[in-house]
Amino acid sequence: MNRGRFITFEGNDGSGKTTISQRVYETLRARGISVIYTREPGGIAIAEQIRTIILDPRNTEMDARTEALLYAASRRQHLVEKVLPALENGTHVICDRFIDSSLAYQGNGRQIGMEEVYAMNLFATQGLLPDLTLFLDVGLEESMKRMEGRGAKDRLDQESAAFHQRVREGYDQVKALYPQRVHVIDAHGSIEEVTDACLDEIERVIAEDA
Amino acid sequence: MNRGRFITFEGNDGSGKTTISQRVYETLRARGISVIYTREPGGIAIAEQIRTIILDPRNTEMDARTEALLYAASRRQHLVEKVLPALENGTHVICDRFIDSSLAYQGNGRQIGMEEVYAMNLFATQGLLPDLTLFLDVGLEESMKRMEGRGAKDRLDQESAAFHQRVREGYDQVKALYPQRVHVIDAHGSIEEVTDACLDEIERVIAEDA
Repeated sequence: MNRGRFITFEGNDGSGKTTISQRVYETLRARGISVIYTREPGGIAIAEQIRTIILDPRNTEMDARTEALLYAASRRQHLVEKVLPALENGTHVICDRFIDSSLAYQGNGRQIGMEEVYAMNLFATQGLLPDLTLFLDVGLEESMKRMEGRGAKDRLDQESAAFHQRVREGYDQVKALYPQRVHVIDAHGSIEEVTDACLDEIERVIAEDA
Repeated sequence: MNRGRFITFEGNDGSGKTTISQRVYETLRARGISVIYTREPGGIAIAEQIRTIILDPRNTEMDARTEALLYAASRRQHLVEKVLPALENGTHVICDRFIDSSLAYQGNGRQIGMEEVYAMNLFATQGLLPDLTLFLDVGLEESMKRMEGRGAKDRLDQESAAFHQRVREGYDQVKALYPQRVHVIDAHGSIEEVTDACLDEIERVIAEDA
């Protein structure tokens, strides 16, 4: 049996990641492909408990490195309990955000440094990287506009425009570092158009199994 | 103003760390020395929340690396909110357990590997090591016997004798790695004798300030 493919979606808040990645998952599933959809903490009890600490708006004193370590802890548990068992079982995994989010958000957004955040995350992932990462690109202005349309804000939504600009620049560095793995998808189009563009890339990676 | 000295106590469970370190703190304080006593999570709200996850007996599915990352996250926040401000203010800090516990417990006890655990902890500590570490040594049999006298058990107290043996071997490696920093204190004697032996070492390190 072939190992499943690990496919992640990345992008700034407001890039349409969640909508598109779910649509992609539903399409693959309707085609009879063995696939699961997840995102950290993914219903894993320990990871959910960690996530509650990260997003609690009362935790305003949280140090950037504490936050990065908590994300890595949540990532580790989600990986061990959910992602790896699926991949080993031959099931593809569509995951909304993974290590690249930590590089962009904590490494560059919070200015810890991407190399240090990467090295620390290696402890959590033991070197596992996605087989394919789809970066949904709508430009910073468009993503900020989409975010404004949202309701209740958690601790991360409250960040400044400068923070989101640094996140975007962090993603630019990730794209430059991993040109084989990370594919940029123009996400300005309709949901159908963007979904189709993502499916083209995924089909290519899944076909490599055969 | 001189920076405060960072003094940590280490040892297997049941080595008398907590009793002795508190007695040492009280003695120093009675002498008019500027000192605080703490241990992770140390009353830091975020670190307390993390500790709750680590010690919850229901979290039996916790991966060893998740646990190590959570300890490092708690360590980071405790360091930033409590330890560093005191040291920078010229106050000495007596801390019950620090990075060496992670090396011994997660690195060797849980068999992740001490080098990996150390590298990951560097992300949390940014290289800060104690000025002095006092390792209380009572031998494994004596510490296990003392532990049996305790009441309600948390997730870590429930570990096997083999685990506590590996922890002890981990500490042996820590002592070999840091002979300048780590001082072994024979902890078989009376509370007064062990406290005095610790105070001798601490006075030496504090005197270096002058």
